[in-house]
Amino acid sequence: MEASNRTKHEISPTKSIRCIVKLGGAAITCKNELEQINGKNLEVVCSQLRQSMMPSGKVFGMDWSKRPGISDVSCNVNEFEHQLTLDSHKFIVVHGAGSFGHFQASKSGVHKGGLHQPLVKAGFVATRISVTTLNLEIVRALAREGIPSVGMSPFSCGWSTSGRNIAAADLSVVDKAVESGFVPVLHGDAVHDNLQGCTILSGDVIIRHLAADLKPEYVVFLTDVLGVYDRPPAEPNAVLLREITVNEDGSWSVIKPVLQDMDKQVDFTVAAHDTTGGMEAKISEAAMIAKLGIDVYIVKAATSHSLRALIGELRGNIPDDWLGTVIRILK
Amino acid sequence: MEASNRTKHEISPTKSIRCIVKLGGAAITCKNELEQINGKNLEVVCSQLRQSMMPSGKVFGMDWSKRPGISDVSCNVNEFEHQLTLDSHKFIVVHGAGSFGHFQASKSGVHKGGLHQPLVKAGFVATRISVTTLNLEIVRALAREGIPSVGMSPFSCGWSTSGRNIAAADLSVVDKAVESGFVPVLHGDAVHDNLQGCTILSGDVIIRHLAADLKPEYVVFLTDVLGVYDRPPAEPNAVLLREITVNEDGSWSVIKPVLQDMDKQVDFTVAAHDTTGGMEAKISEAAMIAKLGIDVYIVKAATSHSLRALIGELRGNIPDDWLGTVIRILK
Repeated sequence: MEASNRTKHEISPTKSIRCIVKLGGAAITCKNELEQINGKNLEVVCSQLRQSMMPSGKVFGMDWSKRPGISDVSCNVNEFEHQLTLDSHKFIVVHGAGSFGHFQASKSGVHKGGLHQPLVKAGFVATRISVTTLNLEIVRALAREGIPSVGMSPFSCGWSTSGRNIAAADLSVVDKAVESGFVPVLHGDAVHDNLQGCTILSGDVIIRHLAADLKPEYVVFLTDVLGVYDRPPAEPNAVLLREITVNEDGSWSVIKPVLQDMDKQVDFTVAAHDTTGGMEAKISEAAMIAKLGIDVYIVKAATSHSLRALIGELRGNIPDDWLGTVIRILK
Repeated sequence: MEASNRTKHEISPTKSIRCIVKLGGAAITCKNELEQINGKNLEVVCSQLRQSMMPSGKVFGMDWSKRPGISDVSCNVNEFEHQLTLDSHKFIVVHGAGSFGHFQASKSGVHKGGLHQPLVKAGFVATRISVTTLNLEIVRALAREGIPSVGMSPFSCGWSTSGRNIAAADLSVVDKAVESGFVPVLHGDAVHDNLQGCTILSGDVIIRHLAADLKPEYVVFLTDVLGVYDRPPAEPNAVLLREITVNEDGSWSVIKPVLQDMDKQVDFTVAAHDTTGGMEAKISEAAMIAKLGIDVYIVKAATSHSLRALIGELRGNIPDDWLGTVIRILK
């Protein structure tokens, strides 16, 4: 399926995707408050995305809908008259769920499958309502910044899984939207699964699939911490891993900070494995993308560091004053 | 394209769609107030749909998300334990835009194409934001009534047009959702157009396409008047057309009310043509569906008449006390 998609929609170099951005759920929602967007962060994230995609400076708002608590509908048609283009330099946005969807999914066990069970079916519907609510809010926030964003739910795009892998995902719709100058906004979603009936398709898996097929120049993960640490970042001696290289066999090693001796390196690796399983999984996911020759930047959202990553400043050398984690192939 | 879809997803009689319902924009929104849902009507419409799809009586709410002004999230997991099935007897819902989307589309001329123009591109984004906002609200209202609704935006499903006709529309996603017991909720949307770049795909055209491909037992149009009249319904002598038959060549004639003499019939037809172009277009659209052997009922939303149409009571004879318009093939 994937192979045939690739054949059908061969990407020529001139048309290639510049960047796929993951808006981490923790960065754009308030993790501990049900269905609460982190509006301030989201606004900065959208503004940085605009600066990265369309350096012209002027903002042409594209959300002409009513907003609760705001009386005016913002739509100034004349603004657009002397604008030559609003094309978006080929970005794709994928967002996580944060405090949207998780409650509904875990209450019902959608991720465990069994769509014939009434509770799972109800949870599937409830999860989709929650995550599409977030998707619409993110599309609107991007549009207010003048980014021609279009929401694309994996479920309605016909994406499905087989186990944890993507079984069907026709990327031609995403591709066509990008070619027309839009910025597709996808998200983690409840989808059909060939083996267990249904599951949750995560934003990270979507990113990996998009990256493998569309070969962006780089991928940016926006998170709520500076990058990847060797242990939970709240712990006193946590060390930010600045640069990780991936070998051809998929294994990876930390090359910055430089570790003093071999013994320490081993301890360190074990520690990373044991205490930060979440991060280990994240590195593995990112390593699979990096293995394709695509640089991956994991960086704190809404900081000067995220802006530098998004505009592509890190493509050559990583400046010493940049804080974040780079994961790339060993050259 | 259509032919190949039909071949790929052959509908067996046991799997057939029972009913496709159009929720007219005028019936579920407040036409003269920007982006205002007619909440009372929508609630009754959803309740009648539940009664038609799932006669069991008990409501298992599936909207577990926060709602503005309502403090509690309604999710009672235990409710679902003894429920055997929540399958929905194969309905598809399509809704119009009403006071959503029209403002954005007409300000920018999305329906006239020219996606390379910044204003049209912005209008495309703004229109989609508005209509997907309505779609989400309708999906939620249906879910609150216990209907396993899933939103499906034609644009993200990859639907596109060529002139006024549908050029690409893979119905396998809709089909699979119905087979899994969901109720797909589609809507009029801004889409790509092969000839002019973009356009507005109307809910009525979507219905005709779905009906031709999926062959439902009957189609119900829920509107804000009793049915089709011979002139604008507000005019004093407006006559409700109770039954219209369609001939094989697509022509149609009013057979109820019976007209007294031939001259009057001709006058009448001309009058219908000249003064109610909107209705003429609606009848033509409905006639194309009826020509396939599918009964079409046009009826006022949220009335006893709409309930009778939705549950399928009109499949044989039309009761004398039923108010609405039936359009069907001449047998």
